[in-house]
Order: sequence, then structure tokens, then C-alpha cells
Amino acid sequence: MSGGEVFTREKLIRFHHCDPAGIVFYPQYFVLMHEVVEDWFTHGLGCDYAAFIAVSRRGIPMAHMDCRFLAPSRIGERVSFRLTVKRIGTTSLTLDMDGRGGTELRFRATFTVVLTSLASGRPEPIPPELRGPMERYLGRAA
Amino acid sequence: MSGGEVFTREKLIRFHHCDPAGIVFYPQYFVLMHEVVEDWFTHGLGCDYAAFIAVSRRGIPMAHMDCRFLAPSRIGERVSFRLTVKRIGTTSLTLDMDGRGGTELRFRATFTVVLTSLASGRPEPIPPELRGPMERYLGRAA
Amino acid sequence: MSGGEVFTREKLIRFHHCDPAGIVFYPQYFVLMHEVVEDWFTHGLGCDYAAFIAVSRRGIPMAHMDCRFLAPSRIGERVSFRLTVKRIGTTSLTLDMDGRGGTELRFRATFTVVLTSLASGRPEPIPPELRGPMERYLGRAA
Amino acid sequence: MSGGEVFTREKLIRFHHCDPAGIVFYPQYFVLMHEVVEDWFTHGLGCDYAAFIAVSRRGIPMAHMDCRFLAPSRIGERVSFRLTVKRIGTTSLTLDMDGRGGTELRFRATFTVVLTSLASGRPEPIPPELRGPMERYLGRAA
Repeated sequence: MSGGEVFTREKLIRFHHCDPAGIVFYPQYFVLMHEVVEDWFTHGLGCDYAAFIAVSRRGIPMAHMDCRFLAPSRIGERVSFRLTVKRIGTTSLTLDMDGRGGTELRFRATFTVVLTSLASGRPEPIPPELRGPMERYLGRAA
Repeated sequence: MSGGEVFTREKLIRFHHCDPAGIVFYPQYFVLMHEVVEDWFTHGLGCDYAAFIAVSRRGIPMAHMDCRFLAPSRIGERVSFRLTVKRIGTTSLTLDMDGRGGTELRFRATFTVVLTSLASGRPEPIPPELRGPMERYLGRAA
Repeated sequence: MSGGEVFTREKLIRFHHCDPAGIVFYPQYFVLMHEVVEDWFTHGLGCDYAAFIAVSRRGIPMAHMDCRFLAPSRIGERVSFRLTVKRIGTTSLTLDMDGRGGTELRFRATFTVVLTSLASGRPEPIPPELRGPMERYLGRAA
Repeated sequence: MSGGEVFTREKLIRFHHCDPAGIVFYPQYFVLMHEVVEDWFTHGLGCDYAAFIAVSRRGIPMAHMDCRFLAPSRIGERVSFRLTVKRIGTTSLTLDMDGRGGTELRFRATFTVVLTSLASGRPEPIPPELRGPMERYLGRAA
């Protein structure tokens, strides 16, 4: 039986993530979430993300983002990002991600990306060498 | 009878919005959507956004973002952003926004912001001088 | 004799340009300066910047930036950017740019970009159809 | 005898640092350089940068940036940033920084920041508890 792994990364909230209110400007959360997905490819799935983009010429553009922001994050905080897989489609991938500062939930997102050829801009099937490792991160509830 | 107005802004897709795939990196859509909300405050609601932040010391942090990305946008394109109000709560405001390049729908978002005191970080009631102008943008379907 | 024209653009300081100190975070000035150069290509030189990048597959990466920041800019301010040409080399172009809020000088920059093929990454001669229009912006002191 | 220490940080070039040409968009180098200065405060000088900003309410806005970009950096590369102190003034601090990908020099910058009160916006003397640790990073040539 597979599934149930959680990919985690701790992110330091930087000066440039914060707005004049002194808290993370919400588009910066999405930049940080993207970094976590990049690291998941490289370190969780064993697929070097930079080569995936620059050599294989594939990408994973966002198709649908649903995110609740529950409490603000401030400069200097370390926010723990957790990623699991909700659903693996033919060409699309739905991920769950949340972020916590200490025990406080800061955001909770579900989003779908589509594996895409950069040359054609068209969806491509998720290849077996990605699908297998992805299945290890399928949430138990899925 | 009120409602039904649409606030629109055309945005030029800039070099810095685009990623190595040559299309808008999705967090940049949220930055552009934020600019449209800023301009709506200033020019649609008659409430100078900069003074709202820097003088009144209030903000409108994101509470919930739901956005579908339907087609990519490229450098040099002019994308037409349209904003309407879906719901005006006591302290929260739900907006509908979409973006079109020509007749092609690029994204469609529904999101909720909360009027907040920057000093306390706590929600505050939407004051009548904002509520009135906001009602003019209530979607007919609402 | 040609020269002496100044290309100007007014830029609104946005929420996302500002840092927790409430002033423009200096890398954002460089993003704004880049937008001014993009508009100069399109509207000053008659060379559509987006086509220059995406169709001609050329770019103008930064080779040398020297910038003094003299006073801070705040959200809601309109900063007037002025661009002139200092020197036109074979493949490189040196520009002067400054920004003013009202009469107050906010920054003053001199920077050199190199016309480059995106395919090869190598410098290319500035073509006559760009060189001619560029000469109109040569500073009188040059 | 003091001086001679070098503060180093390795930075991964991320998707969001890169432009449609597939290389780091130069304002993103300045964001990365800022991160290195933040880490130098916290880990090199023993002054928590976030507390410096958010509790002490001080900042270090940029006064003068001079930077040469010598070769492009690409997604997935690890660029080694090195920081030394060039000059410690009463309220200002001049730093040298360079970045290398392998043995190739990518950029070399000299820049001056000014210790500033966020409340007043005015320069403040660099306090002894910062000045002492800063002196350890004075370049031998200085």
C-alpha cells in the first residue's frame, strides 16, 4: 500500500515578502508555494525541476487555485509548508498545501496544475516516472 | 435600484510578469488584480487607496482566493480586467474578477477580503461611505 | 544636428512596490525603470518591445547599473521618470534615467545594456533602424 | 588585528527569478543580495534582522548601488554570494558583494546603505554593538 507521505519545507519570511502592513503580501505566498513544489519535484519526486523546465521543456502552469488565508505571517517567522497529493489525473495534478507558524494555521490551499509542453503549450500525460513517485504523496483521505 | 456597474482596467503584460515559459507567472496575475482593486478604491469608490492604507491605516488582506486560469497571457498583450461585487458583508467583501485577452477568457476569480485595522490587525465594519459606492458594483445576479 | 529629446513616463507607486518601512523597496525601482525602457522602445523608438523579445528573440540584459537613491518614495505618489541616451556603442547602449516626486529628485541612474540574441546569448550590433531613433535621445552634453 | 572575514551564502536560482529569456531578471539579483545582507545581520553580526526591522524599527535603505553583471545565471544553478565590508561610516555602510556560478563571476557590486530610523526616516549612527562585528568583515584592502 502506498500513499500518506507529506513533503515539508520550512520557509523564512523575508523583508521582500512583506507589505506596508508588515505582513506577507498574499501573492508572495504563492511564490513560496511554487518554491515548495519545485523542491518537491527535485527532492521528493527525484525529477530535477530545473531540467524539467529547461531541458525537457515542460511546465506545470496553474489551472485552479483555491486558498484560504487564516492568519497573517510576519518578517522573521519560519512557516512550515506541507504538501500532499489529492488527485493524479491523466495530465493534471491536484495538490493540497498548508502553512503553519508554530501550531497556527496560516493558509490552506488546494490547487491543480497541468503538465504542459512549453513548445506546444498543450497538456501532456504525466509520465510513469513521475506518476509513481507522486503516488507516494497521495493523502490517505484521497 | 442600484447595482450592475462593472469596473474595468486594461493591463499591459510586461516582461517582468512573464516566466521562462514566456507566459504570465500566475502570482503576477494576483499582483495585477490587486492593482485593479487599488484603482477601484480610488476611481470607482472615491476612496483614495494610498490614503486608506497610509493615513487611515486600514487594509484589505485576502481571506479567500478562488481562481481558474483558462488560457495563458503573453508579453505585450493587453488584458482587460473586470471587477464586480458579489457580496458585501459586515467586515468582508467578496469580489468577482475576470480577465480577457480580446474575447478569450484568461482567468476568472472570486475572492474575499476583510477590512482590517493595520494597528490592531482586527476586522472593522465597512463604513457607510464605502458601502454605498460598493453597492453600485453589485452584480445583478447577486 | 539631432539629440536632446527626453522620454518621460509617470509611474504610480503601488502597494506592492512598498516594503514594511512603507517606502519603495529599491529593486522595485529597477522593475519600474525597466517598464520605462520597454515603453521607450515601443513608443519612443517605434520598435514594439514585446515583438523585439518574443518575435525577434532579442533582449537587452543589464551589463552595468549605477544608481543613487536620494529620497524615498511612498505609496500613492506619482514619480516622473525621465530617460535620455548617454552613449550608443556597437552593441551596447548607456542610458541616463532619473525620477522625481514633484520637484524632489528620488533617484538618478546611469546604466548600460547590451543588445543580445536570446538564442545564442551573444551580443549583436544595434541595427540602424534602432540606432537612428536612439540618436534623437542623445543628451546634449554627450 | 581585525578584518578579512567573508560572509557567504549559496542561492538557488528559482523559476520566479528568471525572465522570458530564461536567465535571472536583474532586479531579482538585488532581491537575492538583500537576502544575503539579512542573513549577514542575523548570522554574521548576531543582530536578528527581523527584530532590527520590526522591533527596533530601523532599516538600511539603499543609498548607492553600483553593479556589474558579467555573465547570466540560469534556473537551477547555485550561485555563491560573498559579502565583505568596504567602509564603515558614521551612519552609512559600504559593502562589496559578488556572485559566482562555479568559478565564473556573475556579478560584482559595491553598494552603500544608511542606517535609518523607520519612525523619523532619518539616519542614525551605527551603534557599537553592530560596528564591532561589522569590522570583522572589513576587506583587507580597505
